[in-house]
Amino acid sequence: MSHVLITGAAGFLGQRLVNALLSQTERPISKLILWDHQPGSVPSGTEAKIVTIQGDLLDEDLRRQAFADRLDVVIHLAAVVSSEAEADFDLGMRINVDGTRALLEACRTQGNCPVFIMTSSVAVFGGDLPTTVPDNWQPAPQSSYGAEKAICERLVSEYCRRGFVDGRVLRLPTIAVRPGKPNRAASSFVSSVIREPLNGEGAVCAVAPETPLWLMSPNRAVEAMVHVLGIPASALGSERVLSLPGVSVRTDDWIAALGRATNSETMARVAWDFDPDIAAIVQSWPGEFEATRAKALGFEADAGEDEIIAAYMAEQKNI
Amino acid sequence: MSHVLITGAAGFLGQRLVNALLSQTERPISKLILWDHQPGSVPSGTEAKIVTIQGDLLDEDLRRQAFADRLDVVIHLAAVVSSEAEADFDLGMRINVDGTRALLEACRTQGNCPVFIMTSSVAVFGGDLPTTVPDNWQPAPQSSYGAEKAICERLVSEYCRRGFVDGRVLRLPTIAVRPGKPNRAASSFVSSVIREPLNGEGAVCAVAPETPLWLMSPNRAVEAMVHVLGIPASALGSERVLSLPGVSVRTDDWIAALGRATNSETMARVAWDFDPDIAAIVQSWPGEFEATRAKALGFEADAGEDEIIAAYMAEQKNI
Repeated sequence: MSHVLITGAAGFLGQRLVNALLSQTERPISKLILWDHQPGSVPSGTEAKIVTIQGDLLDEDLRRQAFADRLDVVIHLAAVVSSEAEADFDLGMRINVDGTRALLEACRTQGNCPVFIMTSSVAVFGGDLPTTVPDNWQPAPQSSYGAEKAICERLVSEYCRRGFVDGRVLRLPTIAVRPGKPNRAASSFVSSVIREPLNGEGAVCAVAPETPLWLMSPNRAVEAMVHVLGIPASALGSERVLSLPGVSVRTDDWIAALGRATNSETMARVAWDFDPDIAAIVQSWPGEFEATRAKALGFEADAGEDEIIAAYMAEQKNI
Repeated sequence: MSHVLITGAAGFLGQRLVNALLSQTERPISKLILWDHQPGSVPSGTEAKIVTIQGDLLDEDLRRQAFADRLDVVIHLAAVVSSEAEADFDLGMRINVDGTRALLEACRTQGNCPVFIMTSSVAVFGGDLPTTVPDNWQPAPQSSYGAEKAICERLVSEYCRRGFVDGRVLRLPTIAVRPGKPNRAASSFVSSVIREPLNGEGAVCAVAPETPLWLMSPNRAVEAMVHVLGIPASALGSERVLSLPGVSVRTDDWIAALGRATNSETMARVAWDFDPDIAAIVQSWPGEFEATRAKALGFEADAGEDEIIAAYMAEQKNI
């Protein structure tokens, strides 16, 4: 996979993925193109040629730059997040749907059927759901972000079926704990309720205590993206959308795990302040998946909520 | 529903729907706009104002004409059929996806949340399927037509969720028996093997005898489109995609029903000539659906394959 493009490369997962790809040796990279609407850090000390592109996914000139040399792998992480897509319908449709389609078209034009990896989300599901969602359950999104991801799942699958790309879609659980600031994802509170108390600050939990969460640590998510690169197309067959395994935990148990890792004072920094808009979105997501196919293909979940919090705390110490 | 737009109005189902809508009195129509890329017959002897529009769904001027007066109901039947969408990927995406989205956008711009009815298809399903497909089974299309319809199901659902349209999507079984000529749908043989022998002509059956078919007569399909207009939004809830009930029959039993309705000589006009391309598409479709929700909402299937063939033969006598 000598030429690799990553969109959303300056994002939280994007930057970790860049490091992971450059530090692995199994699949050497000769050219790495990092595309984002915001500036990101540029890795140094690597033999790979690094090209950064800053701007809109729908910008044709930028797309020509990104696809100047024939790409072998496209990892498409860029997206407008859930609360933002809900607040601005046109923006979400433009970036999340039209942006993805434009990338797929650019891959098709290349004519070499590059690997095309896209991240999707539990947000494609909603409505009446079984406690544990099987792999063959229908998407029924209750948010614009989820609807856009569900459309893109079908786009990638169809471009794959036609032989335009070797498509692989990973439905990620909610990623936690994210460092840094809250973002406009409806799931932002999931990280806030751990991160802010650890920093001695207060945090608000916007959903009901019994709301189930379906979680994955950032490290596992990046591992999954690297892992999916190594799966032969023949092992994937025709169904290219994979619900990844995760950790299922009630929201109050998630916060109790913070108490176990620290003390009751830290845990008490979380205030329960129900926000019906956020709760409506989060409650529409399933709390657990069977993820049978993904497990059989070697994808792994974290061991549990305690491991996720411990990993985050260890990382923060090392910064 | 005083102002009604029908796309694909000159098509086989479109023309029947026009007659059905104009002959019912429960929901009077003051203006009926008939849009198609081909010319169709214009109904006469009606008090409704009839406007015909001929041309491409993506033509902005025509769209402005269609939406000149605020519409109350849009019934979107226009589509590039399956074999054609498979042969010309760009055409299928343009008409089936972009065309539908342009109509939804025009409805949204109106601001009055019109009823938006779209026909979808069994072709959204594929892959490993249970013998009888439940309502909550995931789409996994194995054709471009199916992929495009699956994308549109999500578009209509999302525009509905946002309050831009009152969306209702009907997943139609294969419609049989169609009068006239074969078309470029992969399912065209299903009608040909009945219609051509009844006309004293030969017909080719392109799939294996045991291939299950999921059928609905044209009259039932039009009935369903009229029926869905009368269902209150509250009864539909948030899930707006309905798999309609139908008749499940093996292909050889379907042709045997022709023998029962006529004689062995007529039935012998069907030649079994397996076409792997057509068979691959048709075999990817499910042969039976639970259609639990649609049945509860009052949608009805034909009584069986004999009734479907008898209805066709009676119609042909009356022409």
